[in-house]
Amino acid sequence: MIVLHYNLIIQNLCRNKGIFLDIGYDFLFISNKPFIWGVIVLELNDVLHGHKSIREYEDKDVSQELLEQILDAGIRASSSGNMQSYSIIVTKDKELKKKLYTAHMDQSMVIDAPILLTFCADFNRMRKWLTLNDAPVHFDNFMSFMIGAIDATLVAQNCALAAENAGLGLCYMGSTLANCNQIGEILNLPPNVVPIVGYSLGYPKENPPLRDRLPRHGLVHYEQYNDYSNEEILEIYKDRDEKGWKRYMDIPKLKEMTEQLGLKNLAQIYTIAKYTQESHHQFSNTVLDYLEKQNYMNNK
Amino acid sequence: MIVLHYNLIIQNLCRNKGIFLDIGYDFLFISNKPFIWGVIVLELNDVLHGHKSIREYEDKDVSQELLEQILDAGIRASSSGNMQSYSIIVTKDKELKKKLYTAHMDQSMVIDAPILLTFCADFNRMRKWLTLNDAPVHFDNFMSFMIGAIDATLVAQNCALAAENAGLGLCYMGSTLANCNQIGEILNLPPNVVPIVGYSLGYPKENPPLRDRLPRHGLVHYEQYNDYSNEEILEIYKDRDEKGWKRYMDIPKLKEMTEQLGLKNLAQIYTIAKYTQESHHQFSNTVLDYLEKQNYMNNK
Repeated sequence: MIVLHYNLIIQNLCRNKGIFLDIGYDFLFISNKPFIWGVIVLELNDVLHGHKSIREYEDKDVSQELLEQILDAGIRASSSGNMQSYSIIVTKDKELKKKLYTAHMDQSMVIDAPILLTFCADFNRMRKWLTLNDAPVHFDNFMSFMIGAIDATLVAQNCALAAENAGLGLCYMGSTLANCNQIGEILNLPPNVVPIVGYSLGYPKENPPLRDRLPRHGLVHYEQYNDYSNEEILEIYKDRDEKGWKRYMDIPKLKEMTEQLGLKNLAQIYTIAKYTQESHHQFSNTVLDYLEKQNYMNNK
Repeated sequence: MIVLHYNLIIQNLCRNKGIFLDIGYDFLFISNKPFIWGVIVLELNDVLHGHKSIREYEDKDVSQELLEQILDAGIRASSSGNMQSYSIIVTKDKELKKKLYTAHMDQSMVIDAPILLTFCADFNRMRKWLTLNDAPVHFDNFMSFMIGAIDATLVAQNCALAAENAGLGLCYMGSTLANCNQIGEILNLPPNVVPIVGYSLGYPKENPPLRDRLPRHGLVHYEQYNDYSNEEILEIYKDRDEKGWKRYMDIPKLKEMTEQLGLKNLAQIYTIAKYTQESHHQFSNTVLDYLEKQNYMNNK
């Protein structure tokens, strides 16, 4: 039971938790003590709606106690057949982070955040358990990899929300999968373990605005998939076309790059500058080769 | 601002939200009105920790307003490059659900729950946008599929938590991916759209106990992956070996099946009865063939 005597304490509590506060307060002097009455509404929806990628961090450790609370929240996520076919790797060591920084394409958060979490598809543990119990040992195929990948992603998102609820910030890094082979080597992953998603984690030193999102009606289909007409696509992307382009034009370095490449719109930025076909071919082959190496492609 | 005058109202509010309540209350009679002072702690962590798969549902619709709140919470999830490479399909139609029931391996929730949500990797929308903007059109490779699959899973988990926070129940179904080809056909998916995760959704008619989880130290590694010794595996799985086996023995039909197959422990149940190598080979090839068909395997 929490009883708070000062409005200030409540406000600090909520600010630390990064949570929207709706409170009724008043001072009632009873036995010479001020009381606050009212209700704090700590809404899960405010955490869900408040997510923003944090790339700058305070030079402040996350306590082991808080870290364990975050991990425990992750572990409660749904898992296929309750097999829990994932592992979570917590990396804080500076030397290891330096190596991971390169594998994560020089993203500064890897160095600057106190913690890096890597969520892996993992059937290594389960296969050892099967062996010790004289059970047939498989889960070395593509379906098993996908089950592990989905399990790992669900756990990652639970941890992310628990962390944001506690006032921490994070930034997912797609490089976790794109360079899974390098990261797997640095983290010493055995066969049947593959990095899927990962993020930097720590106390935020920035408070960027929320990123735009496509409108709900452009993302949700009722009953069956209703394929898009050209007019619908133009309408769905209208705001993004404007805001996304402006976002690039507002940053001198990106504006220069855009002009040098002769790019005329946001769509061209995406597939000429940001995600080229060549890079995606390379990442595709990296992942498929690593799946082969990590014993996840025995499909016959 | 919410001001509550009766303890009962607060308790109902919290019960409806499916949320743990910690409250300090008292009645102070001021100007003839009773007041409650104190703090309601609606903890996101209680939602994260309260998840259980719900397979039985009340015969009660979910309002469009609540459904849209859930979808909006999903849409705020992290997304690779903010590309939002997913689509959400909301299926309520009885005829469609009957067809999906078969594709979902006769799981009764598909019929009994008012809503079925299917989260798909989707680069179809983005590719149309690229075409309309004279940008190179790719995202037809395995890396793109994985980006879409991760995006879809993050959105699904945000929606799941928003739904559970509102008192709804759900059950993830691995059949969404395992039979992606059948589900894709029923839901009329165009190329570059693939079902990844899905769940039934509605008001719970059951309140099963929490499922067991492996202990944290069996799932989390510090700095790098620390591979397991045989002794560690036996210790990590000790509780599950007992509880999981008991779970099967307590259900007469499952006990009979276990005896008929001559299974001696939980591990054998997993890979002799539940997830055979043959079924996983089949699912692996279903998914890989469907990725080819859905234009996601152009990796050179």
